[in-house]
Amino acid sequence: MSKDRGSHAVPPDGLPAPPAAGLPPRVRIVEVGPRDGLQNEATALSIDDKVAFITRLAAAGLTEIEVGAFVRPDRVPQMADTDAVVRRLGPCRGVVLSALVPNRLGMERAIACGLRDIAVFTAASEAFARRNINMSIDESLGGFQEILAFATAHGIRVRAYVSTAWRCPYEGRIRPDAVRQVASRLLDMGCREVSLGDTIGAATPTEVWALLDHLARDLPIHALAVHFHDTRGTALANVLAALLRGVATIDAAAGGLGGCPYAPGASGNLATEDLVYMLHGMGIETGVDLERLAAASRSLASPLGHTLPSRYLKAGRPPG
Amino acid sequence: MSKDRGSHAVPPDGLPAPPAAGLPPRVRIVEVGPRDGLQNEATALSIDDKVAFITRLAAAGLTEIEVGAFVRPDRVPQMADTDAVVRRLGPCRGVVLSALVPNRLGMERAIACGLRDIAVFTAASEAFARRNINMSIDESLGGFQEILAFATAHGIRVRAYVSTAWRCPYEGRIRPDAVRQVASRLLDMGCREVSLGDTIGAATPTEVWALLDHLARDLPIHALAVHFHDTRGTALANVLAALLRGVATIDAAAGGLGGCPYAPGASGNLATEDLVYMLHGMGIETGVDLERLAAASRSLASPLGHTLPSRYLKAGRPPG
Repeated sequence: MSKDRGSHAVPPDGLPAPPAAGLPPRVRIVEVGPRDGLQNEATALSIDDKVAFITRLAAAGLTEIEVGAFVRPDRVPQMADTDAVVRRLGPCRGVVLSALVPNRLGMERAIACGLRDIAVFTAASEAFARRNINMSIDESLGGFQEILAFATAHGIRVRAYVSTAWRCPYEGRIRPDAVRQVASRLLDMGCREVSLGDTIGAATPTEVWALLDHLARDLPIHALAVHFHDTRGTALANVLAALLRGVATIDAAAGGLGGCPYAPGASGNLATEDLVYMLHGMGIETGVDLERLAAASRSLASPLGHTLPSRYLKAGRPPG
Repeated sequence: MSKDRGSHAVPPDGLPAPPAAGLPPRVRIVEVGPRDGLQNEATALSIDDKVAFITRLAAAGLTEIEVGAFVRPDRVPQMADTDAVVRRLGPCRGVVLSALVPNRLGMERAIACGLRDIAVFTAASEAFARRNINMSIDESLGGFQEILAFATAHGIRVRAYVSTAWRCPYEGRIRPDAVRQVASRLLDMGCREVSLGDTIGAATPTEVWALLDHLARDLPIHALAVHFHDTRGTALANVLAALLRGVATIDAAAGGLGGCPYAPGASGNLATEDLVYMLHGMGIETGVDLERLAAASRSLASPLGHTLPSRYLKAGRPPG
């Protein structure tokens, strides 16, 4: 798979726009569209379409792509062919491919097809954990011990997702300290980073600050990522809030694909196009070529049978 | 017209959420949906529908509403009945009604039907001014002298809009100093506030800071308002940027109605629902009852023949 880094935050008129004081000069984008996006589509893409999509994302300059999940095919049939997708992609130079794994079996499948990066997932809300993964938070963390031991032995890197880090569809607001406890245990057991999910897209910037300020007392900020859904339009404002607190790893889904099938009211992830547009406008580098990314997302409209919700994708580059 | 202030930024679980340091405790929302929104709809609403909509907006707690424009009916037929709408509304206790006026004749029409607040409009870009109002910026400011003299003599308050304050569809990026010169002259001639428009929805937070920092050297921050379009998803992030610089007057359009017919690529205004949702989540008061506001916007779907684009309107109150 070839890869071209594309343009780096050069504003349309060629003037450099250095990031304002206190903002990171570069943001790491973790592209979750092929997993968190496609798992929620009514139409399952073919292996060919997935491979073509992921190849286009990498060619647009995305260097970390979550390509699928080794979960139960009867619960998430859209992800049933993740093994085949990973094998067809093969090694992608300069691009980290990863997949979600729920347990030891999933991890073995991930490694068998050549992945060196996996992600585990739990929640900050007991009620959400019960309904989403059918375990208590504690039970889920217990299961990760085995995964992490195996990962450490085999040099596999593990990312962790904490869902409902701000708001739970069943419990309402989540206390920052509940998130801290879970995130702290995940980092202690060897996860390289924790991605904090606003699963139902309800958080606002001061809530983002409140949580990050609380976590930063104990945890290294560079080990935290944010994962916003744009359900109520606040995702980019929350990104700005997170950047202002030093978080420089942001999850997004090409085209704004996705949501969460177990979270009532959840709609699309933050669109990678909208994120990249804002970051480049702010002089923050991403390594992504926005027009190539938009073309990758547009290529999904036909196989999925609908256009994707990203605002940038609809509006395009500003005139002038 | 009755008016109920509704809930004041009480989070769903009843815990108070005081605004973070550096943020204003209260934001003044200027509702522009009945003008900047409806003027861009293919379907012109009836006088009855407009009056009902504006009455619902006021009942939801919006205290400043731009209800129409005294512009040429052949160019903007959707606004042709503004006189009748204002007369039907009558005096609204505690609510400031205003309308856009392009010239002395428009102003006389506004006063004749009882308005005490008007708004004038120009641009920061010469090319945009030429195409939008068929004048140079200087010519437009010259015309305002007469309006302002008349307004001062009659105790009429005048707001001024500066379009393309960040980006012009014809000229690209606009220099902050070009905006400063126009805004400064508008305030000097007696306008009570200047609303800075991101007409094509292209600005990003650092560009908002750059402009506001430049303007704040010479101009009182309390005399500045911001008017964002959500064309590329950045409107709420730009609001956060503006709040962090002390701007506490924000324009928005119920449901995300509107755009600009003379600006290629422009789409809906920032939706008032999305703005109020974010502000209340941040503990910032608005005086608006979000559910009543959403109901007002939903009531337009039938007469307009389509649903409105606000994300909050689609998603609703978060569960939990």
